[in-house]
Amino acid sequence: MKLVHYPYELILRDVFTLSHSSRTSTPGVQVELSCEGITGYGEASMPPYLGETPATAASFLNRLNLEQFSDPFRMEEILDYVDSVLPGNTAAKASVDIALHDLTGKLQGRAWHQIWGFDRDQAPDTSFTLGIDSPEKMRQKALEAASKYTVLKVKLGSEHDRELILAIRSVTDKPLMVDANQGWTDPEYALDMICWLKEQGVFLIEQPMPRQVIDAQSWLLERSPLPVFADESVQRLSDVARLKGVFSGINIKLMKCTGMREAFRMMQLARSLGMMVMVGCMTETSCAISAASQLSPGADYADLDGNLLIANDLFKGTVVQGGKLILSDLPGIGVEKIL
Amino acid sequence: MKLVHYPYELILRDVFTLSHSSRTSTPGVQVELSCEGITGYGEASMPPYLGETPATAASFLNRLNLEQFSDPFRMEEILDYVDSVLPGNTAAKASVDIALHDLTGKLQGRAWHQIWGFDRDQAPDTSFTLGIDSPEKMRQKALEAASKYTVLKVKLGSEHDRELILAIRSVTDKPLMVDANQGWTDPEYALDMICWLKEQGVFLIEQPMPRQVIDAQSWLLERSPLPVFADESVQRLSDVARLKGVFSGINIKLMKCTGMREAFRMMQLARSLGMMVMVGCMTETSCAISAASQLSPGADYADLDGNLLIANDLFKGTVVQGGKLILSDLPGIGVEKIL
Repeated sequence: MKLVHYPYELILRDVFTLSHSSRTSTPGVQVELSCEGITGYGEASMPPYLGETPATAASFLNRLNLEQFSDPFRMEEILDYVDSVLPGNTAAKASVDIALHDLTGKLQGRAWHQIWGFDRDQAPDTSFTLGIDSPEKMRQKALEAASKYTVLKVKLGSEHDRELILAIRSVTDKPLMVDANQGWTDPEYALDMICWLKEQGVFLIEQPMPRQVIDAQSWLLERSPLPVFADESVQRLSDVARLKGVFSGINIKLMKCTGMREAFRMMQLARSLGMMVMVGCMTETSCAISAASQLSPGADYADLDGNLLIANDLFKGTVVQGGKLILSDLPGIGVEKIL
Repeated sequence: MKLVHYPYELILRDVFTLSHSSRTSTPGVQVELSCEGITGYGEASMPPYLGETPATAASFLNRLNLEQFSDPFRMEEILDYVDSVLPGNTAAKASVDIALHDLTGKLQGRAWHQIWGFDRDQAPDTSFTLGIDSPEKMRQKALEAASKYTVLKVKLGSEHDRELILAIRSVTDKPLMVDANQGWTDPEYALDMICWLKEQGVFLIEQPMPRQVIDAQSWLLERSPLPVFADESVQRLSDVARLKGVFSGINIKLMKCTGMREAFRMMQLARSLGMMVMVGCMTETSCAISAASQLSPGADYADLDGNLLIANDLFKGTVVQGGKLILSDLPGIGVEKIL
């Protein structure tokens, strides 16, 4: 197998604001993995706060010797090797995993949602995230988004939380998910906020408290009238089992968990432990989004809007129609390259 | 999809003795699931002590309406439906699951060990089981088996346990697994036996105590110098998580867990919880054995000798050479029908 890779900066349609940062583009790396005349596509997306850069990804990918593998179907061996080369580098690892899944799916002539046994008609609606902004801008964004999406998501965690929710609620009554991004450190305050948010038509809370907090988070889960999902508290498969009783569910993101193989296992494990599953994303092209969407028919919720936020998508694959994820019938991860 | 099924009695080469019964044949049912001109093969094997019969299986299979499904790749939906029709009937359910995996694998042109990402060269050796017999007969069986297999398994649980082990040890020093079939009710006695068995070159114990026993089994696990595997204590996916800290590993059998889909999940879950995995079987043709063997490269141990014990195998698939499981390169479950 032959691997090539190149940096590809994702240009955002709008300035994107989180509780700790804002930006106009997201660094990324595109990879192509070829075997038997077929090419699989993969991608690493690297929001700066997660520690990877195009340079670290290139350095990681250059260390890999994938030419030692002639059979792409030995995915366990290949991906165990990729994972073993260096610690961390989860987005770079995910780029190889995604390309390998695209390649093997194409060699089988099937999309991964089929190989995993899912029905693509069961793919959930995706939420659409409203970046933090002034109340006036939030109203405008919410109004626009409410015309296209069935579920909105808002990132909270500042002193203006209630004001922002009320701004959104002044223009739409669409169901809301809230990602607090570890923003609430006092569990009593978090519980008060969750109770208030429920009255405002919020149906799910992500990561209300810092990821190091376990006991207070369990305390919160027991009392919370809304399901509470782990985001920063869960990276990889090894994190999942200890979150039972701490969170209602987990948000699985390919760039954090090293890709589709581990994501599928995390989903299975969470289900086995009675936990719910959301499939999430970073800012990504339709390559990684379509890869993640292959899992979505098995998830309770999807937050796969990363490709909708960029102006220079390289791929056509999973799209959103009337709020719902529509998976293509192409094999592998279901994409075609358009640029 | 069209399902046909017929009873097929498995004739044993030798009388097979467990701690509670002996028999000369095992009832079974063969199934064929067809779609797009391709046929997938499946099988239910029904040792009498598990409660299913060819009549209950036929009755179950006749209740199924699989013609409502035109896309065999919607495996989640199809197998959830099959599981929902009646409780129990795990072997009958497994027959449909195996046939569906054979069918979808053939439609993809790949064997399931490939689809799951395994390397078939990593398939383990299989153990070969010596049925309980007189010491003289045990010596003879052990001598024969030791010439063909690298690992022997013996079923204990009577007052003659030590005598039988010594009879085997008088003719071979091959590594031994012991299945106590819930035969030891006193944990102190079980621990004594395990310590003694370790001195005799036994490397693994299956189900030493009754399946209802949890606390005493945890006590035993803490003290046991050998890994202790669950057999009767584990049936399906929902049993696995509570066995962490109670057993070192689990023996997964398709006929008890409803088939390959659930078996794969049980393997993943056990791994995620830090437990080991054995893939086991009933008396089965090479159909169900080859299906189970698709999982074996991901297992620590295999006990897939059920087809070696019958005189009227219907299939050619996974074979044993020098003790090792050799998976065929045929798609699906890797079998061809030979009768």
